Amino acid sequence: MKLGFVSAILPDLSLEEVVQFAAEEGFSCVELMCWPKGKAERRYAGVTHLDVANLKKPDAQRTHKMLAAAGMRISSLGYYPNFLAPDTTAAKKYIEHFKKVIAAADVLGVGLVTSFIGRDWTKSVDDNWPQFKKVWKPLVKFAEDRGVRIAIENCPMFFTKDEWPGGKNLAYCPAVWRRMFDEIPSANFGLNYDPSHLLWQQIDYLQPMREFRDRIFHAHAKDARVDKNRLNEVGILATPLEYHSPKLPGLGDVDWGKFFSVLGDTGYKGPVCIEVEDRAYEVTLETRKEALRQSARFLRQFIPQKV
Amino acid sequence: MKLGFVSAILPDLSLEEVVQFAAEEGFSCVELMCWPKGKAERRYAGVTHLDVANLKKPDAQRTHKMLAAAGMRISSLGYYPNFLAPDTTAAKKYIEHFKKVIAAADVLGVGLVTSFIGRDWTKSVDDNWPQFKKVWKPLVKFAEDRGVRIAIENCPMFFTKDEWPGGKNLAYCPAVWRRMFDEIPSANFGLNYDPSHLLWQQIDYLQPMREFRDRIFHAHAKDARVDKNRLNEVGILATPLEYHSPKLPGLGDVDWGKFFSVLGDTGYKGPVCIEVEDRAYEVTLETRKEALRQSARFLRQFIPQKV
Amino acid sequence: MKLGFVSAILPDLSLEEVVQFAAEEGFSCVELMCWPKGKAERRYAGVTHLDVANLKKPDAQRTHKMLAAAGMRISSLGYYPNFLAPDTTAAKKYIEHFKKVIAAADVLGVGLVTSFIGRDWTKSVDDNWPQFKKVWKPLVKFAEDRGVRIAIENCPMFFTKDEWPGGKNLAYCPAVWRRMFDEIPSANFGLNYDPSHLLWQQIDYLQPMREFRDRIFHAHAKDARVDKNRLNEVGILATPLEYHSPKLPGLGDVDWGKFFSVLGDTGYKGPVCIEVEDRAYEVTLETRKEALRQSARFLRQFIPQKV
Amino acid sequence: MKLGFVSAILPDLSLEEVVQFAAEEGFSCVELMCWPKGKAERRYAGVTHLDVANLKKPDAQRTHKMLAAAGMRISSLGYYPNFLAPDTTAAKKYIEHFKKVIAAADVLGVGLVTSFIGRDWTKSVDDNWPQFKKVWKPLVKFAEDRGVRIAIENCPMFFTKDEWPGGKNLAYCPAVWRRMFDEIPSANFGLNYDPSHLLWQQIDYLQPMREFRDRIFHAHAKDARVDKNRLNEVGILATPLEYHSPKLPGLGDVDWGKFFSVLGDTGYKGPVCIEVEDRAYEVTLETRKEALRQSARFLRQFIPQKV
Amino acid sequence: MKLGFVSAILPDLSLEEVVQFAAEEGFSCVELMCWPKGKAERRYAGVTHLDVANLKKPDAQRTHKMLAAAGMRISSLGYYPNFLAPDTTAAKKYIEHFKKVIAAADVLGVGLVTSFIGRDWTKSVDDNWPQFKKVWKPLVKFAEDRGVRIAIENCPMFFTKDEWPGGKNLAYCPAVWRRMFDEIPSANFGLNYDPSHLLWQQIDYLQPMREFRDRIFHAHAKDARVDKNRLNEVGILATPLEYHSPKLPGLGDVDWGKFFSVLGDTGYKGPVCIEVEDRAYEVTLETRKEALRQSARFLRQFIPQKV
Amino acid sequence: MKLGFVSAILPDLSLEEVVQFAAEEGFSCVELMCWPKGKAERRYAGVTHLDVANLKKPDAQRTHKMLAAAGMRISSLGYYPNFLAPDTTAAKKYIEHFKKVIAAADVLGVGLVTSFIGRDWTKSVDDNWPQFKKVWKPLVKFAEDRGVRIAIENCPMFFTKDEWPGGKNLAYCPAVWRRMFDEIPSANFGLNYDPSHLLWQQIDYLQPMREFRDRIFHAHAKDARVDKNRLNEVGILATPLEYHSPKLPGLGDVDWGKFFSVLGDTGYKGPVCIEVEDRAYEVTLETRKEALRQSARFLRQFIPQKV
Repeated sequence: MKLGFVSAILPDLSLEEVVQFAAEEGFSCVELMCWPKGKAERRYAGVTHLDVANLKKPDAQRTHKMLAAAGMRISSLGYYPNFLAPDTTAAKKYIEHFKKVIAAADVLGVGLVTSFIGRDWTKSVDDNWPQFKKVWKPLVKFAEDRGVRIAIENCPMFFTKDEWPGGKNLAYCPAVWRRMFDEIPSANFGLNYDPSHLLWQQIDYLQPMREFRDRIFHAHAKDARVDKNRLNEVGILATPLEYHSPKLPGLGDVDWGKFFSVLGDTGYKGPVCIEVEDRAYEVTLETRKEALRQSARFLRQFIPQKV
Repeated sequence: MKLGFVSAILPDLSLEEVVQFAAEEGFSCVELMCWPKGKAERRYAGVTHLDVANLKKPDAQRTHKMLAAAGMRISSLGYYPNFLAPDTTAAKKYIEHFKKVIAAADVLGVGLVTSFIGRDWTKSVDDNWPQFKKVWKPLVKFAEDRGVRIAIENCPMFFTKDEWPGGKNLAYCPAVWRRMFDEIPSANFGLNYDPSHLLWQQIDYLQPMREFRDRIFHAHAKDARVDKNRLNEVGILATPLEYHSPKLPGLGDVDWGKFFSVLGDTGYKGPVCIEVEDRAYEVTLETRKEALRQSARFLRQFIPQKV
Repeated sequence: MKLGFVSAILPDLSLEEVVQFAAEEGFSCVELMCWPKGKAERRYAGVTHLDVANLKKPDAQRTHKMLAAAGMRISSLGYYPNFLAPDTTAAKKYIEHFKKVIAAADVLGVGLVTSFIGRDWTKSVDDNWPQFKKVWKPLVKFAEDRGVRIAIENCPMFFTKDEWPGGKNLAYCPAVWRRMFDEIPSANFGLNYDPSHLLWQQIDYLQPMREFRDRIFHAHAKDARVDKNRLNEVGILATPLEYHSPKLPGLGDVDWGKFFSVLGDTGYKGPVCIEVEDRAYEVTLETRKEALRQSARFLRQFIPQKV
Repeated sequence: MKLGFVSAILPDLSLEEVVQFAAEEGFSCVELMCWPKGKAERRYAGVTHLDVANLKKPDAQRTHKMLAAAGMRISSLGYYPNFLAPDTTAAKKYIEHFKKVIAAADVLGVGLVTSFIGRDWTKSVDDNWPQFKKVWKPLVKFAEDRGVRIAIENCPMFFTKDEWPGGKNLAYCPAVWRRMFDEIPSANFGLNYDPSHLLWQQIDYLQPMREFRDRIFHAHAKDARVDKNRLNEVGILATPLEYHSPKLPGLGDVDWGKFFSVLGDTGYKGPVCIEVEDRAYEVTLETRKEALRQSARFLRQFIPQKV
Repeated sequence: MKLGFVSAILPDLSLEEVVQFAAEEGFSCVELMCWPKGKAERRYAGVTHLDVANLKKPDAQRTHKMLAAAGMRISSLGYYPNFLAPDTTAAKKYIEHFKKVIAAADVLGVGLVTSFIGRDWTKSVDDNWPQFKKVWKPLVKFAEDRGVRIAIENCPMFFTKDEWPGGKNLAYCPAVWRRMFDEIPSANFGLNYDPSHLLWQQIDYLQPMREFRDRIFHAHAKDARVDKNRLNEVGILATPLEYHSPKLPGLGDVDWGKFFSVLGDTGYKGPVCIEVEDRAYEVTLETRKEALRQSARFLRQFIPQKV
Repeated sequence: MKLGFVSAILPDLSLEEVVQFAAEEGFSCVELMCWPKGKAERRYAGVTHLDVANLKKPDAQRTHKMLAAAGMRISSLGYYPNFLAPDTTAAKKYIEHFKKVIAAADVLGVGLVTSFIGRDWTKSVDDNWPQFKKVWKPLVKFAEDRGVRIAIENCPMFFTKDEWPGGKNLAYCPAVWRRMFDEIPSANFGLNYDPSHLLWQQIDYLQPMREFRDRIFHAHAKDARVDKNRLNEVGILATPLEYHSPKLPGLGDVDWGKFFSVLGDTGYKGPVCIEVEDRAYEVTLETRKEALRQSARFLRQFIPQKV
């Protein structure tokens, strides 16, 4: 496995600075955020460490060189908008940009992009299905044609009343994953596996790693702490952030020893990227950097450093 | 405490037959369903054991006599529609009928009615609040004026996609109860406490009995079994019946010894009515009767029989 | 469901006395032991409440009449030898007698027999498989031809060093059941489901009731208590009675509320027969009778009495 | 085992009435309170169902006759003062009266008395030891000489600040029992085993039944509920009633199935007397009687009724 | 948060040596022991790393310089005697010295002192209350006047029979903290929060960090291991060291990931000082130093290193 | 305690290379494999880092020098064949070679050898006992005479059907250890304590460290993960690798904080050697080296580094 991080937490750094920080701290890879240049729509979104819209061959070569010099790898190109947003004009733009991300993954030889399925959050899974098929069948085909794999993160994208009631990503549970891969059985369509979202949904996060072992293309290391005292007040029908908090690995309820134990047994050798969404660490650039360092200190007891 | 049952499970019996069955089986009381005569709108709804719309003094006297002869008491008059339904014409009819139920509770000397708050299930709690105030302030006042108490059952009324996403009853968790009683602090406004709904929402069902001891006017004995194997497939964002099943007391996860232990310590002396919504027992009138008998056999080890 | 008991615990009573006791105590059925007349080979074995070897039409009619008079039903004819015993002469005799049991089940209109697969306990499951196929394919066919179903109890038949290391019954876990039913997919071949044996093997005894819902033809209500203090001394590699004790329902670790809850949800309507193997209750005929009464008192809180 | 109750909860009834109630409710025995006539010193103390100070042969014969007529047995004569009280004048009186209780147990053929060791609650166990030896060696000898056994209840007699800090009975934990029986190894010196006191002290109440199987002469069926919410406020250094409540069997944390399971396996055949100290049931004579009935309903699922 | 340690474990080192060790090992701060020079009264007491009785301005300046050179901070000046000792002459001396500690905290610009409330261990909390008020109202006023805050450690100071039964510090549980801060509501009066003492008292150590978030001025990182096997022998009424052992962080039952997770979420940015009271590490100066190093290795996976 | 590793995982390295790797990675000691030169019989066996059969004085001196230069110690000489194998010719060869290992431990001044008892896996513990006595009494005497201690690893040596049913080492549980040390009470006969084997046997691995504190001469740090999903399929009667996997420390179910906590409290100061049998890390020499590094990173938070 290769320990890295999601670059979204360092929006104030340039690509070169991100790579240099990663190298200094002993990381093996980085998941690079590739949002279109412009204003972020929500927390953790909108970061552009690689401007795929304007990526030319020479840019790619320069990037390659810079990475090689730092001994760093790109684990994936990340772009996480809502492809099934009710605002279809917006959704179309997202899809167009995603194709550029896929194309860039091809040009750069990264071979992997990470994203969400999206969801019209006011509708049920069933009612989103026709649009899912319409959007994703061509997208997966587009990636297949370029030899690029797509890893969908299993985050429900449901936090507060803004995403109530359905959240903005369909791919939130094993039952839906099975349905997705039945619908689009391409070998280029898989998961960006993050155990923390399963944890607070009270889904066993170990057993699916066995069933979906061939679908796990990328993994996120984020943690979550469920607060029983809050659950006692509002119950599981509340919006999720009312009863849980995203935290750094080691500061939540995920059993990381077990996570890496089972992941290793499935034969997974891919990237595991720390994703920081812990508000206690978001104060300054320095605390955000330290969040990555602390997470790495914690995780390295469960993960090989150099192999 | 007085062991009884909710009459909704015996729609095929007349009032006299219900009372006779209750007496034969050693029950102390019955919560009588008082829906308007007509077609049921949903499972367990629409039963009319007491036709309050046409209840005249002489009817009340006859009922009294019949009950006295059987040594039976009415624990409450029950009517559970959606007073905050988006269909405001329907909601108005429900309110009008509820006033008749309250009036009947006065006339019959029962002094207690049981119901839901209701909810526009497509809206958040906050967005339902103005309508809650508008509907319930006058209703509670109406009951107060007649010396009748209203006990609201704490069921989220959220089972399948029909009630998605919000359910059809606001009063589903301690945080909302506190807000309700702050808004309408009348001593005639309280709870019909059912631990099973708290259980599957993962809310401690013991501690609130202490905090809300003065608000618990009536209790339901229903159980629920949460299926971890199902949760592992769909998680807590699924519709509730995907991961839990309503069951007879003793066939679910509620710890009834603890429930009666704490309830007794709070000084509660009121009715505890078995509510049958266990599909395994709904086949015939005889299995539904046996469901009540079996539940009573189970519960009587935790509850005094005659005092 | 129909509450009954296994007649092996009352060897001192005649068939008539067994049936009368069952009727007096409110049981709905009895699983009748049908060993060949003669000396018992092991504890709980060798009881002959019905002498199938000499059962003639008139006997059957007399038995029918006697049962009808008592309002009692036979849940199954039980005979539990080791059909795969290394002593092949003995095994052949067992098989011959079993055919008579099956024939008797046909003649009496019982339609169900209960037994073990058997096992050469010195050999692995794999090494027993050829003999399993050889013995059981014709046996199941024999039963099919007579419209009789065979329910195999899931007891490993491994208690002390006498059955070390493999036990005397192959059908001890879900993995083996699946293999059995794949090998012999007859609809007349199923399980006599006893949760206590799964419990001490540390196998979830609830989930298989869902998967094998169509295979559960009969159930045993026996309990088992695992002693952690003993496990700490000898571990799970010890012979099973070193760390667990068979007990009456309610005196062990099985959660009977959950057991009947899930069993009911699968639609099971068949017999549930109390099997007494609790040494604390085996002193006298009277304590053994009381063991059945106490077990029934315990179980009736989770099971309908008359339907 | 023989199900009975401690007569202290029925102080308003005469001996004849107690016995008649016991017979009507199907109990097998009663532990009779034998305090000296006069004013009670504390809750549950001071009840005199048998006036041992004035018991003459003819009284004993009358009592025998009355019991035989009702088919009732005395499980033990109970008297529970503080023999090691700092007020040595009082302690001497207690000892004198206890000898009369022992003598009465002999005369009546009961053969068993139940009591506490006592304790100077302001002193440690060690500092009480010399007085323990001085008082108890002769007392046990006195009982031995009459063929009477003494069963010491394992209650710490520590509830509120009145008994702070040490409680009024030394025999509260296995470590002290071992020391007691090493000091006075008489076969007539044993335990009146009550699991509820061990439970709230967080001592395994199952394992000691194995180690002390030859010392358990009598047992009390009382329960206790530990309230985690209270512990979170005051911790285990608080006085015990700040974090736990004595309750009827089934309304607390004792696992009674396991209790009777292990007790039965040790070969115990003696009395198990329900002790009611649940304030929710102490309101009237009728609620106290119902407390005994309810406890019996609960316990009889785990205990033989007639043998 | 700033990781440091309590200097009491290094009595053989001078202040300079302590500071140098701290710097070499990457600690951010030290809680300096300020007992009066002389003989220690108990284990871990009596250490004088700063002689506040003789602290002159120039000493303070020298100390400042030395600390600045090492890049080290003093988290607090610590002095932990029993201000409510029954020996009032001794208590007065303690109070006088504590004022010097407070004054030194002012002079040195540390602004924080750490201590106990004290307790007459032979008396209840209530009976200590008058003396608490008498001693602490002026002490808190004294500190307020100098802009110094006082953080009271929540240790019951109850280990063996020496402190039986009440322990030597009143501030041992949330119920008492609430009462303390109600009595003396000064913003300069708070807690030195140590989760290990709450753990063995079986008090949730996470929830109080939320309620008392404004009162936590300092924290101790010590762990404790409760031994269930010992509890089974002696129960919770024993002296605490009979059933638990103070241990280094990571070697006990505290969930440090959760501790820092919740502490971080409350916005705490203050010192967290390792307190070593683990007898397995007290053999030599080198093992005690290694205890600090090992604890730091363990804790740094949950805590930022430099920010 | 001294952190080291078992050299069997590095068969491709020479003794010098092993020692150098150990030194570079900060280990304090190595358990050296001393199998006879030749072909390995099973996974992890057959490694020869020290050729004891041909060890001459000068070799010993050279080895000493080399170790001293690297600052490394040999924790033990390890050789783990089956001394009780049914093939008695092979067993005799093993015994002869083991004597050479013991002699080498004397010559090298190591003073400790590590091994198994062995077992005829087709026979019960009782049936192996005569051979155990016959083989081990002289072996222990042989070691005693040379001042060498023997530490027996508590591995059942039961993994798959190859060792079915009894495993190849008698010393697998506390009950057997007690019997072993009663039979051969020599102070030179002890344990090489590995918690992982106790864990999957479901034996408490903490409490025996207290009882056998004087018998623990060496310890292995290996972990094991029990898979509940597999247990649910096959139960505890399956071969052990069907339901558990050996894993690196931190990737299994052992609570290492508790392990070192209790081990430290017993006064243990000896070696703790990481044993790698985690198939996920066995791919290349580099992954096996990294397995040791990762394990050390994990364990060092619970263990002193230099003392």
